Amino acid sequence: MALNEEVDALRSIPLFARVAPSQLKLIAFTSERLTFPAGRELFHQGDEGDVAYIVLEGSADVILDTPDGEMTVARLGRNDIIGEMAILMDAPRTATVRAVSELVTLEITKDMFFRMIGEFPEIAVEVMRVLAQRLDATTARLRDARGGE
Amino acid sequence: MALNEEVDALRSIPLFARVAPSQLKLIAFTSERLTFPAGRELFHQGDEGDVAYIVLEGSADVILDTPDGEMTVARLGRNDIIGEMAILMDAPRTATVRAVSELVTLEITKDMFFRMIGEFPEIAVEVMRVLAQRLDATTARLRDARGGE
Repeated sequence: MALNEEVDALRSIPLFARVAPSQLKLIAFTSERLTFPAGRELFHQGDEGDVAYIVLEGSADVILDTPDGEMTVARLGRNDIIGEMAILMDAPRTATVRAVSELVTLEITKDMFFRMIGEFPEIAVEVMRVLAQRLDATTARLRDARGGE
Repeated sequence: MALNEEVDALRSIPLFARVAPSQLKLIAFTSERLTFPAGRELFHQGDEGDVAYIVLEGSADVILDTPDGEMTVARLGRNDIIGEMAILMDAPRTATVRAVSELVTLEITKDMFFRMIGEFPEIAVEVMRVLAQRLDATTARLRDARGGE
Protein backbone atom coordinates (compact mmCIF):
# COMPACT_ATOMS: atom_id res chain seq x y z
CA MET A 1 0.00 0.00 0.00
CA ALA A 2 1.31 3.48 -0.87
CA LEU A 3 2.17 5.76 2.03
CA ASN A 4 -0.70 8.15 1.31
CA GLU A 5 -3.20 5.30 1.29
CA GLU A 6 -1.75 4.00 4.55
CA VAL A 7 -2.10 7.45 6.12
CA ASP A 8 -5.72 7.62 4.96
CA ALA A 9 -6.34 4.18 6.44
CA LEU A 10 -4.81 5.28 9.76
CA ARG A 11 -6.90 8.45 9.83
CA SER A 12 -10.08 6.36 9.58
CA ILE A 13 -9.18 4.68 12.91
CA PRO A 14 -10.92 6.67 15.70
CA LEU A 15 -7.84 6.34 17.93
CA PHE A 16 -5.85 8.34 15.35
CA ALA A 17 -8.61 10.65 14.09
CA ARG A 18 -7.10 13.81 15.59
CA VAL A 19 -3.44 13.04 14.92
CA ALA A 20 -1.72 15.33 12.39
CA PRO A 21 -0.90 13.83 8.93
CA SER A 22 2.85 14.28 9.45
CA GLN A 23 2.60 12.20 12.61
CA LEU A 24 0.39 9.61 10.90
CA LYS A 25 3.19 9.17 8.35
CA LEU A 26 5.56 8.42 11.20
CA ILE A 27 3.13 5.87 12.63
CA ALA A 28 2.68 4.32 9.16
CA PHE A 29 6.47 4.06 8.75
CA THR A 30 7.08 2.46 12.12
CA SER A 31 4.12 0.10 12.42
CA GLU A 32 3.53 -3.08 10.48
CA ARG A 33 0.49 -4.80 9.02
CA LEU A 34 0.11 -8.36 10.21
CA THR A 35 -2.58 -10.78 9.02
CA PHE A 36 -3.73 -13.80 11.03
CA PRO A 37 -5.82 -16.59 9.45
CA ALA A 38 -9.07 -17.66 11.17
CA GLY A 39 -8.30 -19.77 14.24
CA ARG A 40 -4.74 -18.47 14.68
CA GLU A 41 -3.76 -17.14 18.12
CA LEU A 42 -2.24 -13.64 18.26
CA PHE A 43 -0.91 -14.63 21.67
CA HIS A 44 -1.71 -17.04 24.50
CA GLN A 45 -2.53 -16.25 28.13
CA GLY A 46 0.76 -16.22 30.07
CA ASP A 47 2.96 -15.43 27.05
CA GLU A 48 5.49 -12.65 27.30
CA GLY A 49 4.73 -9.89 24.84
CA ASP A 50 5.48 -6.25 24.17
CA VAL A 51 3.39 -5.38 21.13
CA ALA A 52 -0.23 -4.28 20.77
CA TYR A 53 -2.48 -4.56 17.72
CA ILE A 54 -5.19 -2.41 16.21
CA VAL A 55 -7.80 -4.38 14.27
CA LEU A 56 -8.17 -3.14 10.69
CA GLU A 57 -10.42 -5.97 9.44
CA GLY A 58 -11.98 -9.13 10.87
CA SER A 59 -12.71 -10.16 14.44
CA ALA A 60 -11.00 -11.93 17.34
CA ASP A 61 -12.10 -13.52 20.61
CA VAL A 62 -10.61 -12.78 24.03
CA ILE A 63 -10.43 -16.08 25.89
CA LEU A 64 -9.60 -16.94 29.51
CA ASP A 65 -8.20 -20.30 30.58
CA THR A 66 -10.24 -21.43 33.59
CA PRO A 67 -10.13 -24.67 35.60
CA ASP A 68 -13.24 -25.72 33.63
CA GLY A 69 -11.77 -24.89 30.22
CA GLU A 70 -11.90 -21.87 27.96
CA MET A 71 -14.22 -18.91 28.63
CA THR A 72 -14.74 -16.32 25.90
CA VAL A 73 -15.12 -12.92 27.57
CA ALA A 74 -15.19 -10.52 24.62
CA ARG A 75 -15.24 -10.30 20.83
CA LEU A 76 -13.14 -7.54 19.29
CA GLY A 77 -13.47 -6.08 15.80
CA ARG A 78 -12.52 -3.20 13.54
CA ASN A 79 -10.70 -0.34 15.30
CA ASP A 80 -10.39 -2.21 18.60
CA ILE A 81 -7.04 -2.28 20.36
CA ILE A 82 -5.64 -5.64 21.49
CA GLY A 83 -2.76 -6.45 23.82
CA GLU A 84 -2.33 -3.09 25.56
CA MET A 85 -2.69 -4.67 29.02
CA ALA A 86 0.66 -6.51 28.95
CA ILE A 87 2.39 -3.35 27.71
CA LEU A 88 0.90 -1.17 30.43
CA MET A 89 1.49 -3.65 33.26
CA ASP A 90 4.83 -4.95 31.99
CA ALA A 91 3.39 -8.41 32.66
CA PRO A 92 2.56 -11.60 30.73
CA ARG A 93 -0.56 -11.70 28.53
CA THR A 94 -3.67 -11.73 30.73
CA ALA A 95 -5.79 -13.62 28.18
CA THR A 96 -5.55 -15.51 24.91
CA VAL A 97 -6.63 -13.71 21.73
CA ARG A 98 -7.62 -15.81 18.71
CA ALA A 99 -8.70 -14.71 15.23
CA VAL A 100 -12.34 -15.64 14.52
CA SER A 101 -12.17 -14.68 10.85
CA GLU A 102 -9.12 -13.57 8.87
CA LEU A 103 -7.76 -10.73 10.96
CA VAL A 104 -5.80 -7.79 9.53
CA THR A 105 -3.99 -5.79 12.22
CA LEU A 106 -1.60 -2.92 12.65
CA GLU A 107 1.18 -3.99 15.01
CA ILE A 108 2.27 -1.28 17.47
CA THR A 109 5.48 -1.78 19.45
CA LYS A 110 5.67 -0.86 23.13
CA ASP A 111 8.00 2.06 22.29
CA MET A 112 5.60 3.44 19.69
CA PHE A 113 2.65 2.97 22.05
CA PHE A 114 4.24 5.08 24.79
CA ARG A 115 5.51 7.61 22.27
CA MET A 116 2.00 8.05 20.84
CA ILE A 117 0.53 8.47 24.31
CA GLY A 118 3.20 11.02 25.23
CA GLU A 119 2.70 13.08 22.10
CA PHE A 120 -1.06 12.80 21.62
CA PRO A 121 -3.19 13.24 24.74
CA GLU A 122 -6.27 12.39 22.62
CA ILE A 123 -4.89 8.88 22.09
CA ALA A 124 -4.20 8.55 25.83
CA VAL A 125 -7.76 9.57 26.70
CA GLU A 126 -9.19 7.17 24.12
CA VAL A 127 -7.12 4.24 25.47
CA MET A 128 -8.30 5.15 29.00
CA ARG A 129 -11.92 5.14 27.82
CA VAL A 130 -11.45 1.70 26.26
CA LEU A 131 -9.92 0.35 29.48
CA ALA A 132 -12.71 1.91 31.58
CA GLN A 133 -15.39 0.35 29.34
CA ARG A 134 -13.72 -3.06 29.47
CA LEU A 135 -13.43 -2.82 33.26
CA ASP A 136 -17.12 -1.86 33.44
CA ALA A 137 -18.14 -4.80 31.21
CA THR A 138 -15.99 -7.26 33.20
CA THR A 139 -17.40 -5.94 36.49
CA ALA A 140 -20.96 -6.45 35.17
CA ARG A 141 -20.08 -10.05 34.25
CA LEU A 142 -18.63 -10.62 37.72
CA ARG A 143 -21.79 -9.17 39.30
CA ASP A 144 -23.92 -11.57 37.25
CA ALA A 145 -21.67 -14.56 37.97
CA ARG A 146 -21.79 -13.90 41.73
CA GLY A 147 -25.50 -13.06 41.74
CA GLY A 148 -26.20 -16.47 40.19
CA GLU A 149 -24.20 -18.49 42.72
CA MET B 1 -2.60 24.12 55.11
CA ALA B 2 -0.14 26.60 53.58
CA LEU B 3 0.34 26.40 49.82
CA ASN B 4 3.92 25.12 50.11
CA GLU B 5 2.84 22.33 52.42
CA GLU B 6 0.00 21.46 50.06
CA VAL B 7 2.46 21.29 47.13
CA ASP B 8 4.76 19.04 49.17
CA ALA B 9 1.78 16.80 49.98
CA LEU B 10 0.86 16.59 46.30
CA ARG B 11 4.42 15.77 45.29
CA SER B 12 4.37 12.74 47.61
CA ILE B 13 1.47 11.27 45.58
CA PRO B 14 3.03 8.97 42.93
CA LEU B 15 0.54 10.19 40.30
CA PHE B 16 2.01 13.69 40.63
CA ALA B 17 5.62 12.77 41.35
CA ARG B 18 6.96 14.09 38.03
CA VAL B 19 4.76 17.17 37.75
CA ALA B 20 6.61 20.51 37.99
CA PRO B 21 6.14 22.57 41.21
CA SER B 22 4.47 25.44 39.33
CA GLN B 23 1.87 23.02 38.01
CA LEU B 24 1.44 21.41 41.42
CA LYS B 25 0.55 24.87 42.74
CA LEU B 26 -2.17 25.09 40.10
CA ILE B 27 -3.52 21.68 41.11
CA ALA B 28 -3.41 22.70 44.78
CA PHE B 29 -5.34 25.89 43.99
CA THR B 30 -8.04 24.19 41.95
CA SER B 31 -8.59 20.99 43.91
CA GLU B 32 -10.23 20.64 47.30
CA ARG B 33 -9.64 18.47 50.35
CA LEU B 34 -12.73 16.55 51.40
CA THR B 35 -12.97 14.35 54.49
CA PHE B 36 -15.50 11.54 54.86
CA PRO B 37 -16.21 9.89 58.24
CA ALA B 38 -16.05 6.08 58.53
CA GLY B 39 -19.16 4.53 56.96
CA ARG B 40 -20.00 7.51 54.75
CA GLU B 41 -20.50 6.87 51.02
CA LEU B 42 -18.48 8.99 48.58
CA PHE B 43 -21.05 8.01 45.97
CA HIS B 44 -23.53 5.23 45.26
CA GLN B 45 -23.69 2.89 42.24
CA GLY B 46 -25.92 4.52 39.63
CA ASP B 47 -25.36 8.10 40.86
CA GLU B 48 -24.42 10.79 38.39
CA GLY B 49 -20.99 12.19 39.13
CA ASP B 50 -18.21 14.14 37.53
CA VAL B 51 -15.49 14.32 40.16
CA ALA B 52 -12.71 11.90 41.07
CA TYR B 53 -10.84 11.60 44.36
CA ILE B 54 -7.28 10.79 45.33
CA VAL B 55 -6.96 9.16 48.75
CA LEU B 56 -4.60 11.07 51.04
CA GLU B 57 -5.39 9.13 54.24
CA GLY B 58 -7.64 6.27 55.28
CA SER B 59 -9.29 3.52 53.26
CA ALA B 60 -12.49 2.89 51.32
CA ASP B 61 -14.32 -0.14 49.95
CA VAL B 62 -15.57 -0.52 46.37
CA ILE B 63 -18.94 -2.27 46.58
CA LEU B 64 -21.22 -3.71 43.89
CA ASP B 65 -24.98 -4.08 44.31
CA THR B 66 -25.88 -7.62 43.22
CA PRO B 67 -29.22 -9.47 43.30
CA ASP B 68 -27.89 -11.24 46.43
CA GLY B 69 -26.79 -8.05 48.20
CA GLU B 70 -23.56 -6.14 48.43
CA MET B 71 -20.27 -7.53 47.14
CA THR B 72 -17.01 -5.81 48.12
CA VAL B 73 -14.65 -6.06 45.17
CA ALA B 74 -11.70 -3.90 46.25
CA ARG B 75 -10.27 -1.91 49.13
CA LEU B 76 -8.54 1.35 48.21
CA GLY B 77 -6.07 3.32 50.31
CA ARG B 78 -3.47 6.06 50.28
CA ASN B 79 -2.61 7.41 46.80
CA ASP B 80 -5.35 5.42 45.07
CA ILE B 81 -7.63 7.18 42.61
CA ILE B 82 -11.41 6.78 43.01
CA GLY B 83 -14.24 7.67 40.63
CA GLU B 84 -12.29 8.06 37.39
CA MET B 85 -14.53 5.51 35.59
CA ALA B 86 -17.64 7.74 35.49
CA ILE B 87 -15.53 10.66 34.26
CA LEU B 88 -13.93 8.64 31.48
CA MET B 89 -17.14 6.95 30.34
CA ASP B 90 -19.42 9.94 30.91
CA ALA B 91 -21.73 7.48 32.66
CA PRO B 92 -23.26 6.91 36.12
CA ARG B 93 -21.09 5.52 38.93
CA THR B 94 -20.32 1.86 38.26
CA ALA B 95 -19.96 0.95 41.94
CA THR B 96 -20.53 2.34 45.43
CA VAL B 97 -17.50 3.62 47.34
CA ARG B 98 -17.74 3.80 51.14
CA ALA B 99 -15.17 5.08 53.66
CA VAL B 100 -13.92 2.26 55.92
CA SER B 101 -12.03 4.58 58.25
CA GLU B 102 -11.96 8.37 58.21
CA LEU B 103 -11.01 9.19 54.64
CA VAL B 104 -9.14 12.31 53.59
CA THR B 105 -9.29 12.91 49.83
CA LEU B 106 -8.28 15.41 47.20
CA GLU B 107 -11.29 16.11 44.99
CA ILE B 108 -10.44 16.47 41.27
CA THR B 109 -13.05 17.89 38.91
CA LYS B 110 -13.62 16.38 35.48
CA ASP B 111 -12.13 19.50 33.84
CA MET B 112 -8.99 19.30 35.96
CA PHE B 113 -8.70 15.55 35.34
CA PHE B 114 -8.66 16.00 31.55
CA ARG B 115 -6.41 19.03 31.81
CA MET B 116 -3.87 17.08 33.87
CA ILE B 117 -3.96 14.20 31.40
CA GLY B 118 -3.52 16.57 28.47
CA GLU B 119 -0.57 18.37 30.01
CA PHE B 120 1.20 15.51 31.79
CA PRO B 121 1.58 12.28 29.81
CA GLU B 122 3.10 10.69 32.95
CA ILE B 123 -0.24 11.10 34.73
CA ALA B 124 -2.07 9.62 31.74
CA VAL B 125 0.21 6.57 31.70
CA GLU B 126 -0.18 6.10 35.45
CA VAL B 127 -4.00 6.24 35.23
CA MET B 128 -3.85 3.71 32.37
CA ARG B 129 -1.68 1.41 34.49
CA VAL B 130 -4.18 1.64 37.36
CA LEU B 131 -7.08 0.82 35.02
CA ALA B 132 -5.16 -2.10 33.47
CA GLN B 133 -4.36 -3.51 36.93
CA ARG B 134 -7.98 -3.19 38.06
CA LEU B 135 -9.17 -4.87 34.86
CA ASP B 136 -6.65 -7.66 35.44
CA ALA B 137 -7.78 -8.15 39.05
CA THR B 138 -11.48 -8.14 38.07
CA THR B 139 -10.80 -10.61 35.24
CA ALA B 140 -9.04 -12.93 37.71
CA ARG B 141 -12.08 -12.76 40.03
CA LEU B 142 -14.39 -13.56 37.11
CA ARG B 143 -12.17 -16.51 36.15
CA ASP B 144 -12.40 -17.84 39.71
CA ALA B 145 -16.16 -17.23 39.96
CA ARG B 146 -16.80 -19.10 36.71
CA GLY B 147 -14.31 -21.86 37.47
CA GLY B 148 -16.17 -22.57 40.71
CA GLU B 149 -19.63 -22.88 39.16
